[in-house]
Amino acid sequence: MLNRPALTPRTVRLHDQDNLVVAVEPIEIGSVVHGVTARERVPRGHKIAIAAIHQGEPVLKFGQIIGFASKPVEPGEWLHEHNVGMHDFSRDYHFAEDASSEAILPVEARATFEGFRRANGKVGTRNYLAILTSVNCSASVARFIAREVERSGLLDEYPNIDGVIPLVHGTGCAMDTKGEGYEVLKRTQWGYAANPNMAGVLMVGLGCEVFQIGRWKELYNIEESDTFRTMTIQDIGGTRKTVAAGVAAIRDMLPVANRARRETIPASELMLALQCGGSDGYSGITANPALGSAVDLLVRHGGTAILSETPEIYGAEHLLTRRAATREVGEKLVGLIDWWEDYTSRNNAEMNNNPSPGNKAGGLTTILEKSLGAAAKGGTTTLNGVYRYAEPVTAKGLVFMDTPGYDPVSATGQVAGGANILCFTTGRGSAYGCKPTPSIKLATNSEIYRRMIDDMDINCGDVLDGSTIQEKGREIFEAILKTASGQRTKSEEMGYGDAEFVPWQIGATM
Amino acid sequence: MLNRPALTPRTVRLHDQDNLVVAVEPIEIGSVVHGVTARERVPRGHKIAIAAIHQGEPVLKFGQIIGFASKPVEPGEWLHEHNVGMHDFSRDYHFAEDASSEAILPVEARATFEGFRRANGKVGTRNYLAILTSVNCSASVARFIAREVERSGLLDEYPNIDGVIPLVHGTGCAMDTKGEGYEVLKRTQWGYAANPNMAGVLMVGLGCEVFQIGRWKELYNIEESDTFRTMTIQDIGGTRKTVAAGVAAIRDMLPVANRARRETIPASELMLALQCGGSDGYSGITANPALGSAVDLLVRHGGTAILSETPEIYGAEHLLTRRAATREVGEKLVGLIDWWEDYTSRNNAEMNNNPSPGNKAGGLTTILEKSLGAAAKGGTTTLNGVYRYAEPVTAKGLVFMDTPGYDPVSATGQVAGGANILCFTTGRGSAYGCKPTPSIKLATNSEIYRRMIDDMDINCGDVLDGSTIQEKGREIFEAILKTASGQRTKSEEMGYGDAEFVPWQIGATM
Ligand SMILES: [Ca+2]
Ligand SMILES: [Ca+2]
Ligand SMILES: [Ca+2]
Ligand SMILES: [Ca+2]
Ligand SMILES: [Ca+2]
Repeated sequence: MLNRPALTPRTVRLHDQDNLVVAVEPIEIGSVVHGVTARERVPRGHKIAIAAIHQGEPVLKFGQIIGFASKPVEPGEWLHEHNVGMHDFSRDYHFAEDASSEAILPVEARATFEGFRRANGKVGTRNYLAILTSVNCSASVARFIAREVERSGLLDEYPNIDGVIPLVHGTGCAMDTKGEGYEVLKRTQWGYAANPNMAGVLMVGLGCEVFQIGRWKELYNIEESDTFRTMTIQDIGGTRKTVAAGVAAIRDMLPVANRARRETIPASELMLALQCGGSDGYSGITANPALGSAVDLLVRHGGTAILSETPEIYGAEHLLTRRAATREVGEKLVGLIDWWEDYTSRNNAEMNNNPSPGNKAGGLTTILEKSLGAAAKGGTTTLNGVYRYAEPVTAKGLVFMDTPGYDPVSATGQVAGGANILCFTTGRGSAYGCKPTPSIKLATNSEIYRRMIDDMDINCGDVLDGSTIQEKGREIFEAILKTASGQRTKSEEMGYGDAEFVPWQIGATM
Repeated sequence: MLNRPALTPRTVRLHDQDNLVVAVEPIEIGSVVHGVTARERVPRGHKIAIAAIHQGEPVLKFGQIIGFASKPVEPGEWLHEHNVGMHDFSRDYHFAEDASSEAILPVEARATFEGFRRANGKVGTRNYLAILTSVNCSASVARFIAREVERSGLLDEYPNIDGVIPLVHGTGCAMDTKGEGYEVLKRTQWGYAANPNMAGVLMVGLGCEVFQIGRWKELYNIEESDTFRTMTIQDIGGTRKTVAAGVAAIRDMLPVANRARRETIPASELMLALQCGGSDGYSGITANPALGSAVDLLVRHGGTAILSETPEIYGAEHLLTRRAATREVGEKLVGLIDWWEDYTSRNNAEMNNNPSPGNKAGGLTTILEKSLGAAAKGGTTTLNGVYRYAEPVTAKGLVFMDTPGYDPVSATGQVAGGANILCFTTGRGSAYGCKPTPSIKLATNSEIYRRMIDDMDINCGDVLDGSTIQEKGREIFEAILKTASGQRTKSEEMGYGDAEFVPWQIGATM
């Protein structure tokens, strides 16, 4: 009875083109998985070949190259450092050679959702009024205005409005006007003001801060209108008067904002932000590839998905440059990587995504495999654009936006870029939520799904029990459409999103 | 009738030992000010000598050296670049040579206030419960807990408690555990937990963040108690359960916190944070020196005042090192200046406090004069200690804490250092307020005082109309004692302080 092998050990096949599967539980010699008989013991989380791989041929996981066979591999062999190697990709960038033109469904064949079509043609999935702030010095006033509106009961008369959100932050002054931090803040504010989930925007400043609302309006050619107003505390003469003026401004916007109506819209108007936070050993084999499968579907239906978190794809950018639509797109990504190396070294920190000994014991063989576990949520399609933090995203299909890995900062950049829906994978259990962009939270394992059921929208842990990645991807795609149409996520039900607006701070606070 | 001189033009004498006064309005030739007849026209904001100054003798403003006569100066002469020069102080640091031991009143002669004596001997001026967060990922939960407590009406039963404050922030993860940013955050959190204005603290985390609550507790040897509790969302199992557990923890603290009673306490238990924001041409001649005069009084009564905003004293650190109690204190200040030069250059920014052409036209002659206008709020006593950002302040008398000039970030460091009261001078009009530390706002001019009357506590503009700096200093000192005893400031009445907790972010966000 000792060492009796599990006769049908559970495995996950991450992509149709893969020549391996991942062991969910240990595979003993002689067990049969995916029609092949195990020739060696394969530990939990490790990989077993399900096809012959000639020496030098690519080893495929997530449908992508994670390394090359360093010797001939027979079906049923354990795949790890002893038989999988990696070319030295360092600085060996190839551009666009793996790009393909995915078939995009014609408009009439696309999935649809019920969204708010804005005057500029963009489509919102929610209908919020926002109170933005130029500087921390007007943060309390912004929140006082939102509280007064809430207390007034005014919103009850306007059922088509999702709420009034004060989006405050800790910066906006004592910063270099020629620095990157200031550029990032200006873009972020513009992006929030322009996000299609906003029906109207009030921006409140103090008056003497570095972030001058007047100059920012000029820069972006923003005009005051019945859905865009600005004011400063110093101009108006203090807190109470500004709160009164702010409430009056919102009151004026409410009837205009309330006129918005949902209509049927093709899925090609969705811009999906991809996030992961609190990842675990399952992230790369359940929720991330399942989300990637949903992204492949969304791209097929003409939509856009934003992959981000530059530090987490570090070391695998070579794979993304090969998937880039053009050399220019690929080179922009390489430029970001160079910027990060400078940014971290200036700040006495380090970029390194090599698998740790713990990662290797857990089954990760190469840096490509590790970074692809994070990038898997972006799916497998061509990379059509690369954007700096908070830049407006204009390309369709899969794009990359430079952000830190830190969830609220990363998502803030994506929402500024125009994301009108967000999917967030988590293994340890995140409590993230966003306004104005609804966030669907995907648990990587069933235990955290059950433990944090108040926060989790979808369980991807059942991939370990036999659901396929493709099935899960379709489930996520359906949830995206329903959420975009107005179904509230767990984090929306609980009221998340006021505290999670965190523009990336770069540079010295003086 | 042309050019008829104002016969008694208004001037400000900033300190008893000064050999000059500042013109509030232009002084024409032949006008008599402070008993001397003007020999030259002196523009508004500029300086006129009221005593003879031999060549090489110091020119004194704020009772301190702002330069040296570059030629003999007669009473009634205009003092500016043509007759005032500055030695090259660069790298020429003298330590402690101007230090003196101020007479401190004996305990029984000290002014008193009504404060909350804590178990560790420190004294609070307010009695708050705080909800701290280790990371942005628990920010919403902290605010949900505070909102639930507020909605419950529970606080009505505990009249001695000033409120429950959620103090959330944008960082706590994706940071270098060996970096300065992390050190600063750990100190800030400890300082807020330990501030004597706190009756109790709940700290809420997510669980998987870089800022590990368990390790932080070990580092500071913090034990859980009936007024200190911690919890994480991942441990407890999601948002709703954590909010319930947090509300229960606060509910348990309320009766304990409510037992605190005000008692008569000597002013030596006051620790005053000094701030200025939105400064104008009057800051250096009205509110800042008036506050400095109050600080001199507070020091005489045995109290502590914290001067900060390192970028604003840049170039005049040589004067502070001379006033340092010991060489060690002075050298610590020089070390901070060197750190700032590195910090700004690493971030492609610059430190420079030289008077601009506009400053010079306005009457500022030297970098010393400019920086002393900012430092004037620290008064004239010996510098007894120099602290890094958010370090616990232990010295009595005047001390310096390294902070940026940016108000909320600077004040957050001071409150973490232990400040139980705060004075904030403003010319352009700040709307700052703080919890748990009451903030008295001092207008530098009567116009902004009137325009922003809902925000301003004290008008220092009347110094221009004949109130002396010393009278104003006594008024401020009295307001400090009353506020410390429970009288609410304008910003407290309006509910400021939840959004102004902004720990200094240093380093890369990964
Ligand atoms: Ca992340
Ligand atoms: Ca991650
Ligand atoms: Ca300041
Ligand atoms: Ca200042
Ligand atoms: Ca220096």
